[in-house]
Amino acid sequence: MEKMDLSKFALADLLLTAVKSEISSQEIYARLALQVKNAFLQERMNFLAMEEGKHRQALENIFHQRFPDREIIVPEHPVVPLPEIHISDEQVPLSEIIAQAMKSEQAAHDFYLQLAELFNDDSEKKNLLLYFSMMEMGHYKLLDLEKNNLERLEEFSQEQELIHLGP
Amino acid sequence: MEKMDLSKFALADLLLTAVKSEISSQEIYARLALQVKNAFLQERMNFLAMEEGKHRQALENIFHQRFPDREIIVPEHPVVPLPEIHISDEQVPLSEIIAQAMKSEQAAHDFYLQLAELFNDDSEKKNLLLYFSMMEMGHYKLLDLEKNNLERLEEFSQEQELIHLGP
Repeated sequence: MEKMDLSKFALADLLLTAVKSEISSQEIYARLALQVKNAFLQERMNFLAMEEGKHRQALENIFHQRFPDREIIVPEHPVVPLPEIHISDEQVPLSEIIAQAMKSEQAAHDFYLQLAELFNDDSEKKNLLLYFSMMEMGHYKLLDLEKNNLERLEEFSQEQELIHLGP
Repeated sequence: MEKMDLSKFALADLLLTAVKSEISSQEIYARLALQVKNAFLQERMNFLAMEEGKHRQALENIFHQRFPDREIIVPEHPVVPLPEIHISDEQVPLSEIIAQAMKSEQAAHDFYLQLAELFNDDSEKKNLLLYFSMMEMGHYKLLDLEKNNLERLEEFSQEQELIHLGP
């Protein structure tokens, strides 16, 4: 994601953007965990889903602290469109889904880094968002290693696992 | 770890070296999880401990398959001395323990990469060991990000968390 000025958006909308992104990532990883054959990768997907779920909770807490009178309504179209994983109803190679998830993690990393700048008056929340940014980068790196491993296996003509995320 | 020729060692001893290393890492991460204040980091430590435990199980399975008549006796002094975390009975800054854990993960990565070469007759086990190598590199990268985060906090004169791993 290019460096963008988030200060033109309402803070509530930005927090809801992040909540939506975490819900979407959590769902994808949970679905992947049900489908991948590799038991180690399955555990890793469950772990990523768990972390995204905790991010969501923390973001909702921040929202309630800042906007105690407002309800959380997850927007269909968030103010900042973050890349999500395209859910097709066809089978897709696992490495392709991982590549999409990496883009989404990179964007989340960038988004939190910029969102943190809007919390200069609250160092605790600012540090939490910077920590989330770092965590998403950790997801990116784990996924990158998994993708490299799949590509290595493919070189030795091992069949790519196909995943069906869609309905 | 420098590139070393593992073929001069007995395979059983090399597998026991790896088992010992996984036990030691699992124990460290489990102890860290009990001590760190950050709930996200705590979950990550538990996750790393869980993965090391699964590696240990898988290595023990390989040992039993290759040496069905032998018992697993974890050596006090493995044939290849892998760096372990120094357990002092004093309090140590968290970032220092993480730095030591990173060295240990790097060494485990290198070790599995070389151990895999001894399984050229068994592509399933070879791929599993290469996968473990990749997983340890994932741990290294996650720890590196955590260490950077602690150093960033320190720049803003936040006190370093002290950890007591020893008896």
